[in-house]
Amino acid sequence: MPSPSTKAFVPFVSVENMMRLVHNVGIETMMSELVEALEEDFRRWDQFDKTPRVAAHSADGVIELMPTSDGGHYGFKYVNGHPKNKLTGHQTVTAFGLLADVATGYPVLLSEMTLLTAIRTAATSAMVARHLAPKNAGTMAMIGNGAQAEFQALAMKAVVGVKAVRLYDIDPAATEKTCRNLEGSGLSVKACRSSEEALEGAEIVTTCTADKQYATILTDNMVGAGIHINAIGGDCPGKTELHPDILRRATTFVEYPPQTRIEGEIQQMGEDYEVTEFWRVLEGSQAGRTDERQITLFDSVGFAIEDFTALRYVAERIKGTELYENLDMIADPDDPRDLFGMLQRAM
Amino acid sequence: MPSPSTKAFVPFVSVENMMRLVHNVGIETMMSELVEALEEDFRRWDQFDKTPRVAAHSADGVIELMPTSDGGHYGFKYVNGHPKNKLTGHQTVTAFGLLADVATGYPVLLSEMTLLTAIRTAATSAMVARHLAPKNAGTMAMIGNGAQAEFQALAMKAVVGVKAVRLYDIDPAATEKTCRNLEGSGLSVKACRSSEEALEGAEIVTTCTADKQYATILTDNMVGAGIHINAIGGDCPGKTELHPDILRRATTFVEYPPQTRIEGEIQQMGEDYEVTEFWRVLEGSQAGRTDERQITLFDSVGFAIEDFTALRYVAERIKGTELYENLDMIADPDDPRDLFGMLQRAM
Repeated sequence: MPSPSTKAFVPFVSVENMMRLVHNVGIETMMSELVEALEEDFRRWDQFDKTPRVAAHSADGVIELMPTSDGGHYGFKYVNGHPKNKLTGHQTVTAFGLLADVATGYPVLLSEMTLLTAIRTAATSAMVARHLAPKNAGTMAMIGNGAQAEFQALAMKAVVGVKAVRLYDIDPAATEKTCRNLEGSGLSVKACRSSEEALEGAEIVTTCTADKQYATILTDNMVGAGIHINAIGGDCPGKTELHPDILRRATTFVEYPPQTRIEGEIQQMGEDYEVTEFWRVLEGSQAGRTDERQITLFDSVGFAIEDFTALRYVAERIKGTELYENLDMIADPDDPRDLFGMLQRAM
Repeated sequence: MPSPSTKAFVPFVSVENMMRLVHNVGIETMMSELVEALEEDFRRWDQFDKTPRVAAHSADGVIELMPTSDGGHYGFKYVNGHPKNKLTGHQTVTAFGLLADVATGYPVLLSEMTLLTAIRTAATSAMVARHLAPKNAGTMAMIGNGAQAEFQALAMKAVVGVKAVRLYDIDPAATEKTCRNLEGSGLSVKACRSSEEALEGAEIVTTCTADKQYATILTDNMVGAGIHINAIGGDCPGKTELHPDILRRATTFVEYPPQTRIEGEIQQMGEDYEVTEFWRVLEGSQAGRTDERQITLFDSVGFAIEDFTALRYVAERIKGTELYENLDMIADPDDPRDLFGMLQRAM
């Protein structure tokens, strides 16, 4: 069988190679580099196609496609959310993504994105916190110590300069796991017995719990003046973590309002609830934090452009390395009209 | 580095393995088997999610995602259409697809779909012709001799019993290529100098040209009574092949009206132009051909369910073979909450 032409090859980054890439670059360096790439893309937010994700709902979960394009590249992520997967030893959320060349429609990267999504989510939080958290914020409370916890802690360390994290989870085993994983990270880590304890002295609060229903992880009296809230867990219809009174006091920043109003914390508020699109802060057309006593809230749900940036970053980062395989995924006959001849000659 | 668990593996069918599969099964057997699988899925049409394709248009072409689900499996196809790709030796249309388990959201098959789309398109044409073409149809005229031509000819031979094909293309080189590729196929093949000549004695006419603009490949006076027209090439807004007068005389069958009214031949007609959904003919609730002098028209644009069927067929057909590789695409930590620990232990 003749070997396929180079046009037929799509670079593929497996889970194993993604782990190697993280180790080769170093996770904190990777977070910092990814924040630079994210800021680049957030600054040119206007150039991106912003279609809502395409969701297929079932009794057990949801499968979504999240496409976007900047005119030069096209990217999409496949991601599922199946809360019951835990019971059978499967991941609740798995993902992979693809980057393609808009001019030809040919794929240029296929990548695992379960790890990459965890990394881009933390990098996005850190990017926003760098601009909105109080100056010299050194302590972060982390409510919910699941799969995202360590990534958040290390991104905040690398990008914002956080030195201490205070952990709380309703399941002490989750907190123990996070403490263990952060040993030797250079962060001062404290396991707390309540959210209130975790919040003591924290300038940044990250909420990242897995509850499906409306939950109240933070109530109004727990949130002092000047805090930055990084709300990660309220990310689908019916799933929120903050009491509405907090939203009434806070200045709220979002990725893409049409999506956040459906999936974010602000689904609890009316359509007229005021939000700032974060990219406008970066671009300089709207204010970020204006007052040291102000409560800033990043109501994060995850948007396709962040995945696009992460794929673009990986595509650049693997160049010249051996951290990918070439997949023979695109049929490429010598004469494009002679697909059948290619098949025949392969006999 | 510990090796990934089996849950992390996604079977991948490369272009090379797809060609091997076609040769192992035999292309005519494959067409027949695929038609059986297509009829199964068309009969349960009601069970499928039918969302329109999600398209990203650019100056040079379009990239589309075509998702669907039957509640048990979820499938989508990535497909591009870039007419100018020919100029740089790229394929105009390339595709790949994914099948996933709805219960867990885990992918169960990743496959090349450039070849598979050519095969499923021809199988769909043959499925419809088997039900709508005049009894004992033995001759097919094939206007447009591009990448789809041989697949159409062999599917019609295997499934409908066509014995002779009469070829015409404005580019004689395309016709020569098709004649050459069909040597030894058992079909009687004739190269014709005009569409009119190709149509002589044909009971089935397949139109499959690549023109982007409204074209008139067939005019009304060319189409005699009793013919079945298999119109493949009118498949996007602004691209049609038949004169509207033919549509006025024909009984028209379509896959999914909301899509066909935008992309098919019937985009030339009003919203009240009457069509029959082909699945209803299979199901028995609507009539197919009722009269031997009737002109039947299959206005084919290609629908996500056909890709779903093709992926489902391939997933079954590769079981127990070595015609796939396992891709390490899904991160699968021992403890789903300990994604970071998996990364750390891989150091």
